[in-house]
Amino acid sequence: MPDAGSRRDLAEIMAERRALVDAALDGRLPPADEPPLTIHQAMRYSVFAGGKRLRPMLALFGCEAVGGTLEDAMPAAVALEMIHTYSLVHDDLPAMDDDDFRRGRPTCHKVYGEAVAILAGDALLTQAFRVLADPIATGVPAARRLQIVAEIATAAGSLGMVGGQTMDIQAEGETLEPATLLTLHAKKTGALLRASLRAGGLAGGADDAAMACLTGYGERLGLAFQIVDDILDIEGSSAEMGKATGSDARKHKATYPAVFGLEAARRDAARLLAEAREAVRPLGDGGVVLVALADFVERRRS
Amino acid sequence: MPDAGSRRDLAEIMAERRALVDAALDGRLPPADEPPLTIHQAMRYSVFAGGKRLRPMLALFGCEAVGGTLEDAMPAAVALEMIHTYSLVHDDLPAMDDDDFRRGRPTCHKVYGEAVAILAGDALLTQAFRVLADPIATGVPAARRLQIVAEIATAAGSLGMVGGQTMDIQAEGETLEPATLLTLHAKKTGALLRASLRAGGLAGGADDAAMACLTGYGERLGLAFQIVDDILDIEGSSAEMGKATGSDARKHKATYPAVFGLEAARRDAARLLAEAREAVRPLGDGGVVLVALADFVERRRS
Repeated sequence: MPDAGSRRDLAEIMAERRALVDAALDGRLPPADEPPLTIHQAMRYSVFAGGKRLRPMLALFGCEAVGGTLEDAMPAAVALEMIHTYSLVHDDLPAMDDDDFRRGRPTCHKVYGEAVAILAGDALLTQAFRVLADPIATGVPAARRLQIVAEIATAAGSLGMVGGQTMDIQAEGETLEPATLLTLHAKKTGALLRASLRAGGLAGGADDAAMACLTGYGERLGLAFQIVDDILDIEGSSAEMGKATGSDARKHKATYPAVFGLEAARRDAARLLAEAREAVRPLGDGGVVLVALADFVERRRS
Repeated sequence: MPDAGSRRDLAEIMAERRALVDAALDGRLPPADEPPLTIHQAMRYSVFAGGKRLRPMLALFGCEAVGGTLEDAMPAAVALEMIHTYSLVHDDLPAMDDDDFRRGRPTCHKVYGEAVAILAGDALLTQAFRVLADPIATGVPAARRLQIVAEIATAAGSLGMVGGQTMDIQAEGETLEPATLLTLHAKKTGALLRASLRAGGLAGGADDAAMACLTGYGERLGLAFQIVDDILDIEGSSAEMGKATGSDARKHKATYPAVFGLEAARRDAARLLAEAREAVRPLGDGGVVLVALADFVERRRS
């Protein structure tokens, strides 16, 4: 692992990993000319829509931080991005958040229609587990791979991400108690980000102590990432975010700045990122890139 | 295994297995009082809506036919029913088949709204894989369990069930070529029924020869079941089917009788079921209950 303490190094590492993840995603999605064409084109349209690949990055970094290889964590990285993408496709539907654009492009249902968008989301979620169970040669023992399936399914399901989205839909237009908002964020975005680190750790053969470091880091980074996202929605320019900003407020979405105030949001994000860096200190050199990633989130402007 | 050659014996066995499957489903769904309440209530509403539990039955029978135990196959049985239920919840949505009733009860989105119905389907699909990866004590080796995950994910995904539903949505109002209709059925309903037998076989430690028997049986029973379903939609009384009959024709759905004619449909169903019985003959006594199940499908009137 090269020294990733400087911003430039991290940006280079992230670009390199992103290319590897994109190639792996391409290899693990059915080809666009495989019938039925529409479903496969819709899946690819949404997966290759310019995402940051944060979850794959966390899985790869988490795995390397405990001594595993990129190859060990790649199935989890690919699966996590497929699950994240499916959640966006379904969240954008008219019956849910009703968004016409994401990352500057028309959303899946605007291009392919609602029925195909629902099915494309379903297929991406299903394919994620297909990838995790892939019988290709892997250095990760089968029992560990089942643990990764359980970890990711728990985080993505009704006690995690889907539960958080349910709360979010039901909370629209309501003023949330601070504790309720924290639960919503922990489920809706926190659970899968936490699971990304943990899946990487499991793939890399982490012991309990190392898993605890990655878990502590993942929980704090996850919440900080959400807070920064909410702040950018208020402050960011439309061009940078690729979607209309201020959209949370227009939809009366419950956000961290709305509940706690903008200054508290900034302060809490900085504190959480400091705690995240502290959490991976016991990993030594392995954790350097995770520290750099926390810096990156802190400086994020889009 | 009691002698299941007579209709009465099979009915008793099916009732007993159905009770076991329902208890296992109850144990593997989050409680209705677990927040967020709505999503868990919606999941349970649709799972406990009076389904026949055909897929769990096939998994349990397939496992026992090759010498495995009910316990070996129960995670697959539960997962298959969760996946089948999610597919019905999503298929019923206004953007898809737009059905207000199923099995005589209002559909999930009529009771809980579209957003929650989409999310309940997502959560059921996710929980299915959580169950398959469950780290509880099981006699099935981890590598076999990963094979079961792969088998079910492949059958449920864009090359199987979701792909079939995509074809079905796009074919509405069109006259299909016979070959296209067979592909549609093989994907939409056939793939998961075939996978039910195969998942049971894998859980029971089947060798390649036994897997081939179960696969041949599953493919024929699956298509026959769909044909009988289509015939019953034309002939059955509304009370027996629990939904409006003739609904396929009203929606201009492509069905086997519509493409091949009613007499050919009856003849082909009988032939497929005879072939299914023949396919499991090499399993000897283990296959008796599968033979009885083929008889049961042939006599099915609702």
